[in-house]
Amino acid sequence: MSQRARRLARGVALVGAGMSKFGAFADKTSRDLFVEAFNAMAKTVDKGMETKDIEALYVGNFSSDLFEGQGHIAPIMADWIGLVPKPATRIEDACAASGVALREGLIAIASGLYDVVLVGGTEKMTNLPTERVTDTLAAASDATYEASCGFTFPSLYAAMATAYMAKYGATVEHFMKVGIKNHNNGALNPKAQFNKSIRDLMNSRIEKAKQKGDPVPEWNDELDFLKDPRANPVVAWPMRLFDCSPITDGAACLLLVAEDLAKDFSNNPIYIVGTGQGSDHALHEREDLTSILAARTAAREAYEMAGVKPEDIQIAEVHDCFTIAEILATEDLGFFKPGEGYKAIENGLTARDGAKPINTSGGLKSKGHPVGASGAGQAVEIWHQMRGEAGPRQVPGKDIRLALTHNVGATGGTCAVHIYQRR
Amino acid sequence: MSQRARRLARGVALVGAGMSKFGAFADKTSRDLFVEAFNAMAKTVDKGMETKDIEALYVGNFSSDLFEGQGHIAPIMADWIGLVPKPATRIEDACAASGVALREGLIAIASGLYDVVLVGGTEKMTNLPTERVTDTLAAASDATYEASCGFTFPSLYAAMATAYMAKYGATVEHFMKVGIKNHNNGALNPKAQFNKSIRDLMNSRIEKAKQKGDPVPEWNDELDFLKDPRANPVVAWPMRLFDCSPITDGAACLLLVAEDLAKDFSNNPIYIVGTGQGSDHALHEREDLTSILAARTAAREAYEMAGVKPEDIQIAEVHDCFTIAEILATEDLGFFKPGEGYKAIENGLTARDGAKPINTSGGLKSKGHPVGASGAGQAVEIWHQMRGEAGPRQVPGKDIRLALTHNVGATGGTCAVHIYQRR
Repeated sequence: MSQRARRLARGVALVGAGMSKFGAFADKTSRDLFVEAFNAMAKTVDKGMETKDIEALYVGNFSSDLFEGQGHIAPIMADWIGLVPKPATRIEDACAASGVALREGLIAIASGLYDVVLVGGTEKMTNLPTERVTDTLAAASDATYEASCGFTFPSLYAAMATAYMAKYGATVEHFMKVGIKNHNNGALNPKAQFNKSIRDLMNSRIEKAKQKGDPVPEWNDELDFLKDPRANPVVAWPMRLFDCSPITDGAACLLLVAEDLAKDFSNNPIYIVGTGQGSDHALHEREDLTSILAARTAAREAYEMAGVKPEDIQIAEVHDCFTIAEILATEDLGFFKPGEGYKAIENGLTARDGAKPINTSGGLKSKGHPVGASGAGQAVEIWHQMRGEAGPRQVPGKDIRLALTHNVGATGGTCAVHIYQRR
Repeated sequence: MSQRARRLARGVALVGAGMSKFGAFADKTSRDLFVEAFNAMAKTVDKGMETKDIEALYVGNFSSDLFEGQGHIAPIMADWIGLVPKPATRIEDACAASGVALREGLIAIASGLYDVVLVGGTEKMTNLPTERVTDTLAAASDATYEASCGFTFPSLYAAMATAYMAKYGATVEHFMKVGIKNHNNGALNPKAQFNKSIRDLMNSRIEKAKQKGDPVPEWNDELDFLKDPRANPVVAWPMRLFDCSPITDGAACLLLVAEDLAKDFSNNPIYIVGTGQGSDHALHEREDLTSILAARTAAREAYEMAGVKPEDIQIAEVHDCFTIAEILATEDLGFFKPGEGYKAIENGLTARDGAKPINTSGGLKSKGHPVGASGAGQAVEIWHQMRGEAGPRQVPGKDIRLALTHNVGATGGTCAVHIYQRR
């Protein structure tokens, strides 16, 4: 019976989407960030919304337990936006927490139980010292068999990167080009943690050296800069600093309604026509490190439900927690064949003005990666791009009718994929 | 639109339910406990099940992050029972985690996405020293406004207990009688952490004193014993040791299927005809500490969906993390009027052979409280009682057709209520 094509009993539309500024905010907790995202979302509902319209909350969060000493955050978030006594549920699937929360929101509306559901994600990461953040994130690996042996997330993704290089001949330059592309996009996103291009970062380093009278580094272009260990130290070879997403505080909120109510809230709703989710073994158990089973599973389910193919997708936000992860994503999603994702970077296909723009928001790499909020944050970018409201980073020359988000938990133990349609 | 009566688009049946032994197991992790519960559940499916029938997993867990340094447990649980690459989602609403996971399982089947869903809960608590367990549980309160001021869970429930005593005239003896009743039930439950009555515990203390030649305490009955601070020290007045549920390792699993498939799996399925969930403000913000808004909200939704009234419910498992909590539960559920719950204890109405048996399993107090597994564990008891398979603790003289579970997160920030029917 599990072989039937999966369908939701009711259609669901996105009628509002917003996020807090992503960054490092010493004076804000996860609840402050969530309220900021909620208020930003509310402003995007064309015909307005009232908090009392919302019937339930699903909030993604990886580990406020470890980051803030705060568990049971769902009713706190509900309380701080005035939702009590409505149901409030926390979803945790590591960095896929709010991608999965989005899926639960769709499911809840399809079930007939609710018509209007708020989905969100929030994470406050920067109040711990970096080494404790690394340990906390490592709790998303298999703590018994991976973290306990010394594996951190950069090293787990480094294992995937080296396997990919060995199998397909990709080089560190390909990874660097992912970072360059995503910083180029993030430079145009005022809510991004790093809204500067790598060329700008390079030039400001050169400028500073000149001003201080230090020896001026001879960097001709971004690749020169990224290959220099003074600018871009190795974290876990071949992953260097600029291959890794940052430590980020942030939150995002999405308002979902039953399809038949969409026009009551929005002049230009975005319909979510496909959802998929999969799981995978922990990394140490896998036969192949160059593809994520959970992602392929989630993508297949979402495509089947939406009745579309990878080539129909016009833009996508994918989970680039590390640069290698973006390349794997574009292959697991079927945008490119296995072993061809790195060539697409080389050829500029995934640039903002390329044939298949990927991570126009800047991605996790440049926009920032508040882990439990990242999945919902991806949907915020899709919302703006599909409605033609992405400002200076609006994808040029495309009437975007179909888009996709791909949100991975940890090294791919979880993946959630969603497909969005504008009618 | 939120005023309409809530309905699920498809009916759902419980066709299997099982739990691990609850207790303290130094050599077991949360994944070991989960596998034990899964295997116990599989044995209860009358017509058999295969793992490949299961389409998704929802697993409740409060904080393996803090207890075991392990986040992202859902895909690990899926992997260890052979479910990869099926979707696996962790639900966290503190001690209501698996009660809410059960609700998510119902919603997921009603949505049309799945026909067969596994719901579970797991928590490994005893590998931390007691004071760190206390701190970890305090993370389920409002860490910023409650835990940071020194509030622990016994003290938060003590505040509720003193408010109740002041308002209604209840005494510590009433709380003690809840513990006596639940230990009497747990004494008949081989999977309970404490399967001894308080009378037996008292007698063995007397016997030991005699054997050692120590002064023999003059205890005539359980109340004598419980009033003696040598036997039952105060934790946070009026809550003493035997008013508090223990620190427990354990897991529970439930197999849910779409109503039309119930007879393919079970000769005697239990239909889940009502589900409700609510949230509440943190305790420090409430005007009244003697009732939980989330519980009243969840109960109303569940009763309306099931089309039944409190007086129709024949047995219930309610959230007795502290003895006062059971009394509040029986009032919030409408079994007794506000201020009359303690009189029901006095009059034996909630005993196993009373008019309204409550916590025949022993409750969290005696069966144990592995926090993220407790909600699913409640449904396991209902399953056995409704099918007449509860052995020596089977409720006498009742043909049980309607039952209820009530699962609270923290001090009531969350509550999930479910209503079960045998046809």
